[in-house]
Amino acid sequence: MARNAELTRQRLLAAAADEFATLGIAGTKVERIANEAQCNKAMIYTYFGSKEDLFNAVFVVEVADRIRAVSFDPADLPDYAGRLFDCFDTNPNTVRLYNWYNLERPGGPALASIGLANENKLGRLEQAQADGVVADHYSPIEMMTLLRSIAATWATLSHSSLGPYAPHERDRRRFCVVDAVQRLIRTG
Amino acid sequence: MARNAELTRQRLLAAAADEFATLGIAGTKVERIANEAQCNKAMIYTYFGSKEDLFNAVFVVEVADRIRAVSFDPADLPDYAGRLFDCFDTNPNTVRLYNWYNLERPGGPALASIGLANENKLGRLEQAQADGVVADHYSPIEMMTLLRSIAATWATLSHSSLGPYAPHERDRRRFCVVDAVQRLIRTG
Repeated sequence: MARNAELTRQRLLAAAADEFATLGIAGTKVERIANEAQCNKAMIYTYFGSKEDLFNAVFVVEVADRIRAVSFDPADLPDYAGRLFDCFDTNPNTVRLYNWYNLERPGGPALASIGLANENKLGRLEQAQADGVVADHYSPIEMMTLLRSIAATWATLSHSSLGPYAPHERDRRRFCVVDAVQRLIRTG
Repeated sequence: MARNAELTRQRLLAAAADEFATLGIAGTKVERIANEAQCNKAMIYTYFGSKEDLFNAVFVVEVADRIRAVSFDPADLPDYAGRLFDCFDTNPNTVRLYNWYNLERPGGPALASIGLANENKLGRLEQAQADGVVADHYSPIEMMTLLRSIAATWATLSHSSLGPYAPHERDRRRFCVVDAVQRLIRTG
């Protein structure tokens, strides 16, 4: 019985991730998620609370946990950017959910939890700069935001604007990310 | 009379830009735009057609026209990135509207119109590379997408994730964008 409940929860989370990633919070219909997961709508409220709460649960699994799982080494930022690219490339929902949340709930609590994990990375980056391991022409936060933008370049590409012209080979896209961050942190 | 109609249209466009930028297409209520512009809802349909059509009209003015107005010189990409930053910094609605549209209408026609303007830029960039004016370690589309991501770095920063740690001085943010693109195109 407890196992069944857990399976239902997982099915709902997976259906919700796809629906929210496609349509955002305002655009999502809880009913459609229930249909997709072969549940009834009442179960969503029982398991998760409101639509908002369901989104937050999805966000933790698909965005916060995923980004946190990408191992960070301040001494090798190009590699970190490459691993972030891998994460975004393998999980297309991750960047979309992040962007929806950033637009729809700019001051939302789930983003704040990512902020905390970043604080730790920024501290380690600062230390690495003080130790002379990383160039310091940018402050830690400047370096990190530029790196994040570069790592998400292909994931945020518009399908109908620059998208059609972009290289489709995963390796080439990854190379651009790693190479750009290498240039970014080069001294002098 | 024609002048009044034009003023009403302008008022509606301005109100719609703020509403769509804040709430997206799905989240926007046409009624609220009408109230804000001191019109009635029927006038929106008379002037623009559907909510979708109204969004497209806003997109042309606030995104497509604005980005097109940023002068492009393939021989000075860091400067172009700086001007793009200025555009995004002065018009916070521009990047938000672009991001909403990219999420809500990934294959929408308005983005395609931006794509066409990009085609021209990519052609000029390719020529500049062939002439040896610009480094060619990235293809034109790779260079352009990386440059765009870097230029939009601060505009897409989450208020509750990395946002609070970021430098607030406009000059410093601009410096980071221009400097990062300088590094990006450095030969060798």
